[in-house]
Amino acid sequence: MNGIRVLVLSGGVGGAKLLRGFYRVLAPGSLAALINTGDDFEHLALQISPDIDTALYTLAGLAHVEQGWGRAGETWNFMAGLEAIGGETWFRLGDADLALQVERTRRLRAGETLTSVTRHFAKGFGIAAEILPMSDDPVATRVITDEGELAFQDYFVRRRCRPAVRGLRFAGAANARLSDAAHAAFASPELEAIIIAPSNPWLSIDPLLAIPELREALDSATVPIIAITPIIAGRAVKGPTAKIMDELGIEVSPLSVAQHYGDLLDGFVLDSRDAALANRFAISVGIIDTLMTTAEISDRVARTTHCLAARFARESLDSH
Amino acid sequence: MNGIRVLVLSGGVGGAKLLRGFYRVLAPGSLAALINTGDDFEHLALQISPDIDTALYTLAGLAHVEQGWGRAGETWNFMAGLEAIGGETWFRLGDADLALQVERTRRLRAGETLTSVTRHFAKGFGIAAEILPMSDDPVATRVITDEGELAFQDYFVRRRCRPAVRGLRFAGAANARLSDAAHAAFASPELEAIIIAPSNPWLSIDPLLAIPELREALDSATVPIIAITPIIAGRAVKGPTAKIMDELGIEVSPLSVAQHYGDLLDGFVLDSRDAALANRFAISVGIIDTLMTTAEISDRVARTTHCLAARFARESLDSH
Repeated sequence: MNGIRVLVLSGGVGGAKLLRGFYRVLAPGSLAALINTGDDFEHLALQISPDIDTALYTLAGLAHVEQGWGRAGETWNFMAGLEAIGGETWFRLGDADLALQVERTRRLRAGETLTSVTRHFAKGFGIAAEILPMSDDPVATRVITDEGELAFQDYFVRRRCRPAVRGLRFAGAANARLSDAAHAAFASPELEAIIIAPSNPWLSIDPLLAIPELREALDSATVPIIAITPIIAGRAVKGPTAKIMDELGIEVSPLSVAQHYGDLLDGFVLDSRDAALANRFAISVGIIDTLMTTAEISDRVARTTHCLAARFARESLDSH
Repeated sequence: MNGIRVLVLSGGVGGAKLLRGFYRVLAPGSLAALINTGDDFEHLALQISPDIDTALYTLAGLAHVEQGWGRAGETWNFMAGLEAIGGETWFRLGDADLALQVERTRRLRAGETLTSVTRHFAKGFGIAAEILPMSDDPVATRVITDEGELAFQDYFVRRRCRPAVRGLRFAGAANARLSDAAHAAFASPELEAIIIAPSNPWLSIDPLLAIPELREALDSATVPIIAITPIIAGRAVKGPTAKIMDELGIEVSPLSVAQHYGDLLDGFVLDSRDAALANRFAISVGIIDTLMTTAEISDRVARTTHCLAARFARESLDSH
């Protein structure tokens, strides 16, 4: 394997599309992804890791891209069987997808780490990239809403993001450690850029940033850290990002996202539809079309972001 | 619900066919089955109960009758998914079947008994009969072979019954208790007969008989106990019964089966193909066609066995 050149911090579907781009444009083994596990939960006594699976399925070419979750060509006989015996069916698990949930649960119960299980799956799918959980320790995203505090999937799937968000907390994050594999990715001599994917900053990226060791690794990184906007023309590409920003009293703008990440960032990738905002950023900005509706656009976003990282690194060097 | 009139001790597919007959000919609520759980095992961190599921699927009309296990119209995308990530695929679990395994595991982990879980499933399937595990305590059938001691499913499925059987033991049986529901079935004031299904006596019925409380309940039963032959014309209807009898040095004959059950029995149902053996039995014998190739034959076997029980009861009364 080559050394890691690009490390992406990512949540679910938006992040996975960016990963797909980097995976296609980089040499095999050059990409690592640190994936949000704050959405992970136990359901039907199975250990479910939605964002990890979205990354795996996407890079394996198995994802149901239009649906935004799960596998293409999936069947649903398990769910039908479960419904017949009065089981909980609000969280949809396809028949083939269930293989990962069952095998993950079996391996975790046998004492493996989530990192090891995920690597095993990635290998099975022939993925030549490091898909890493943000931590092997449990972190649970809890959504504080006008209806009380909800477990993430209760908020996201069962209540379909309907309750108004007042805040978030990441139970377990303060004591969660980075895995050796994650430390190794940060320490890769070939590392050229750390990218924050256009995932929901509050729901999907903040769980990672809430882990002290991960925050330290970012703070002491010598390569540029670049975020890609999840907000285009005042709207989120997908999911409840804009709704949540609104509920938290934050202007729905890429500027708010950059402000949210603050000092962490060396650069920001703005969508071309928001080019007019570029001069209002305190950090270096790249402007491209970030709406990854096709694999080719994902490739271009990856390639351009990678080049911008080199430019930001030069600028940063110049300014010293 | 009516009171229990017939209590059947049963293993897998042969027993299920008899259960189907009794279920069709008796009024709803009149049938109870005590099912072998010695074949139960943990696999993929799931709690699997093959004989219980065969009984449930058969009475629910969902069984794959020709195949002898699993559900009709089953799909296999979970297994395909599992194979892709290098999981264990020697034990086939269909997509719809998996719903029972996952929900059973979830409920057991949450502290429910197997009796309670099984009743819940039976209710979900609309089955108006008591399907009871032989015990809520774990009992594991271990097969002592010329290749060493094997867990039941290792012998039965993985090794396809190939190793020569030298003996059997039922780990946990000595300390296993009867459930309250099983005690209640034995104590039913309406009980008219206890039937030992034409299941494999050594593999499927002996695990039940190895439970001291179950043995006591049989010994103190005041209704006739009748076994139906699993051997027809020197051959087993299905499975390795004849092979195992051979390996244990036992003549492959219904007489050997009756001798095996010994004092327990008040009567024996012999297949009409073996009518010539009738006068060699020390107990009352009924002679009918026992090969349950259709639902109608199952009905007839159930009806005839039920009538024989009444006759045996009368004979037993006469002889006092």
